Amino acid sequence: MPAISIKGDEMPASPIRKLTPYAEKAKREGKHVYHLNIGQPDIETPQIMLDAVRNINFKVWAYTPSEGIESYRNKLAGYYNKLGYAIHADDILVTNGGSEALSFAMQACVNPGEEIIIPEPFYANYNSFTRSAGIDVIPILSRIDEGFALPPIADFEAAVTSKTRAIAICNPNNPTGYLYSREEMEALRDLCLKYDLFLLVDEAYREFCYDGREFVSPMQLDGLEQHTVVVDTISKRYSACGARLGCLITKNKELWNVVLKFAQARLSAPAVAQIAAEAAIDTPQSYFDAVKKEYTARRDTLVTGLNAIDGVFCPNPGGAFYVVARLPVDDADRFCQWMLEYFSYENQTVMMAPASGFYNTPEAGKNEVRLAYVLNRDDLKRALICLERGLVDYPGRIGL
Amino acid sequence: MPAISIKGDEMPASPIRKLTPYAEKAKREGKHVYHLNIGQPDIETPQIMLDAVRNINFKVWAYTPSEGIESYRNKLAGYYNKLGYAIHADDILVTNGGSEALSFAMQACVNPGEEIIIPEPFYANYNSFTRSAGIDVIPILSRIDEGFALPPIADFEAAVTSKTRAIAICNPNNPTGYLYSREEMEALRDLCLKYDLFLLVDEAYREFCYDGREFVSPMQLDGLEQHTVVVDTISKRYSACGARLGCLITKNKELWNVVLKFAQARLSAPAVAQIAAEAAIDTPQSYFDAVKKEYTARRDTLVTGLNAIDGVFCPNPGGAFYVVARLPVDDADRFCQWMLEYFSYENQTVMMAPASGFYNTPEAGKNEVRLAYVLNRDDLKRALICLERGLVDYPGRIGL
Repeated sequence: MPAISIKGDEMPASPIRKLTPYAEKAKREGKHVYHLNIGQPDIETPQIMLDAVRNINFKVWAYTPSEGIESYRNKLAGYYNKLGYAIHADDILVTNGGSEALSFAMQACVNPGEEIIIPEPFYANYNSFTRSAGIDVIPILSRIDEGFALPPIADFEAAVTSKTRAIAICNPNNPTGYLYSREEMEALRDLCLKYDLFLLVDEAYREFCYDGREFVSPMQLDGLEQHTVVVDTISKRYSACGARLGCLITKNKELWNVVLKFAQARLSAPAVAQIAAEAAIDTPQSYFDAVKKEYTARRDTLVTGLNAIDGVFCPNPGGAFYVVARLPVDDADRFCQWMLEYFSYENQTVMMAPASGFYNTPEAGKNEVRLAYVLNRDDLKRALICLERGLVDYPGRIGL
Repeated sequence: MPAISIKGDEMPASPIRKLTPYAEKAKREGKHVYHLNIGQPDIETPQIMLDAVRNINFKVWAYTPSEGIESYRNKLAGYYNKLGYAIHADDILVTNGGSEALSFAMQACVNPGEEIIIPEPFYANYNSFTRSAGIDVIPILSRIDEGFALPPIADFEAAVTSKTRAIAICNPNNPTGYLYSREEMEALRDLCLKYDLFLLVDEAYREFCYDGREFVSPMQLDGLEQHTVVVDTISKRYSACGARLGCLITKNKELWNVVLKFAQARLSAPAVAQIAAEAAIDTPQSYFDAVKKEYTARRDTLVTGLNAIDGVFCPNPGGAFYVVARLPVDDADRFCQWMLEYFSYENQTVMMAPASGFYNTPEAGKNEVRLAYVLNRDDLKRALICLERGLVDYPGRIGL
């Protein structure tokens, strides 16, 4: 039998999924499992978007242009310009989800063997895209006690080498929910300009900023036009994860043209999703207001509930729909598995994502978990009760 | 401004698209351009498939499993088993088009710096996927005078080195339309077993075999279970290129699990496309019979017409909807551009894909073009008249 490639062998397995067999076993045993481990929202997709799917009127389901349908890119530019991005449709390249945009951006900006700096914890699939492209990730540790704020810029500067080509962040952050401030974004801008680095910003959760806090994109900062690559997706904005539609935005024409070559190789993004996403841009503001209100209430329920549990600490993040909490346990990987395998309270348990999978530094985040507040408040409250009871019973509980 | 990655810089531009600016200019000048350069069929998508899109009834457009929706994979396994593939749903992994399946297969089978052998001319995007993955393509020349049959197996054997990990073919072939015989497939099998190589077969055009000729998949050959990777797409089968849905099939569990890790990194394939493709499996045989009859008639029109032109030679291929023809010209790249830029007949001209972009060997296919018979017969006849006149007028015409 021929050998699998080393690269394939070394591809990291998804940290969100590694407990799936235990969750399936728990379900087979009749337990109800509260899924706080995944980022699949339960929010309904806007009606206007689903109607666009139901009203398709083509006879041939044809390729679209590799860079995306022109009318969609035009309307999308309008959406971004309302946010002050000052872009043209020609700065946008439509992709197969935000995933592909990330993968294209990394490959276009960074050579195999070169480096990209990313504050950790970070979205675990960044490791998959960089591994696949032979790129080295240099993690910079952000700290739960500081609410996962941007680490000191001196930490980034100390990590810059002759091989550094880019800095990547996710704002608001997955997995921490942290929303970067204008000062933090400007500090990153200054550093990228000083060392001539690309700044890749994953803005998948842009719509999810709470408490009236300001969202700042590098697209809104002067001087960074040639250095900025924004990666976006409609997955979370319209609760349309299954549409698999994202985009990459850059005003750097040379970079855009290189990304186009990657895009041409895979021909096009899905046509129906683009038609639906074009319609979705007319989603009324009331939809987002309702969603934001719901998520804010869920976050408050979850964060308050977590901090009320003895020994648990959870910062109150400004965006996205995730939190990372510290638990009084020896090892969160072991605890999360134990919750599925050995624990139940009133025949219920909770599935969480151990945070270790979001850190590259060994041992970092060992007693932390990521929780997604993608369930309604009643379910969140029940999940919190399970977690509290679980922490009492867990044999590996430790003091903090 | 930061430098673009070398890999990005070196990504090949699409040979099918490089003449696009000239075609656009021709259109602006009021010329009608017959597009024989692209693989976008004009055939209608089956009604049953479009109806499935119009009848979606979910409220949340959610992620699907990374390996594909279970019911779709089950039904798809049934489709393949009717062809004698003897597979299970668990051998299938649903992808973002055949493109992603190809990219995953290559990365999972071949390390950066290692080699994959491919008979040329071949689908130009294979170069993009291998370049992106740092894989070297070793081309083996097939010859127009032999109808682009599989080159002698000794040529393949001579090309095997310690770095060779796989052989890839497209069957029926894009760009030549050649349909590989059972003997050729068995010869490839024996070679792959002898040197323990993966055999990657792109079967995008499986449905398009003419004159009652037999289609042979490595899935139907004994002994190759651990070596075979089939890459498929619904793009051509159901004229649904814009659905962006393909799959990878392998009975090699270790390989399948590695490909799953690549698939998990990009989360999932598009949901609506999978729902539609599941419905499409019930497309009546009469649809395929009609399509096959139409393509056979088009092929006959095109091949007969081409060979009737003084100095032109075109083999009569057994499948797909492409032919590669030899023209009495100094340089087909120059000729194709000239046809758009300087030529018209009754205000019409023809756009073809110069075959040079499908060869890696310098100078190979220099006087060849690929023509896709994706237009109706009347248009094909008019395009042939244009081509004949163009060849008379072209200043770079040469005798053969």
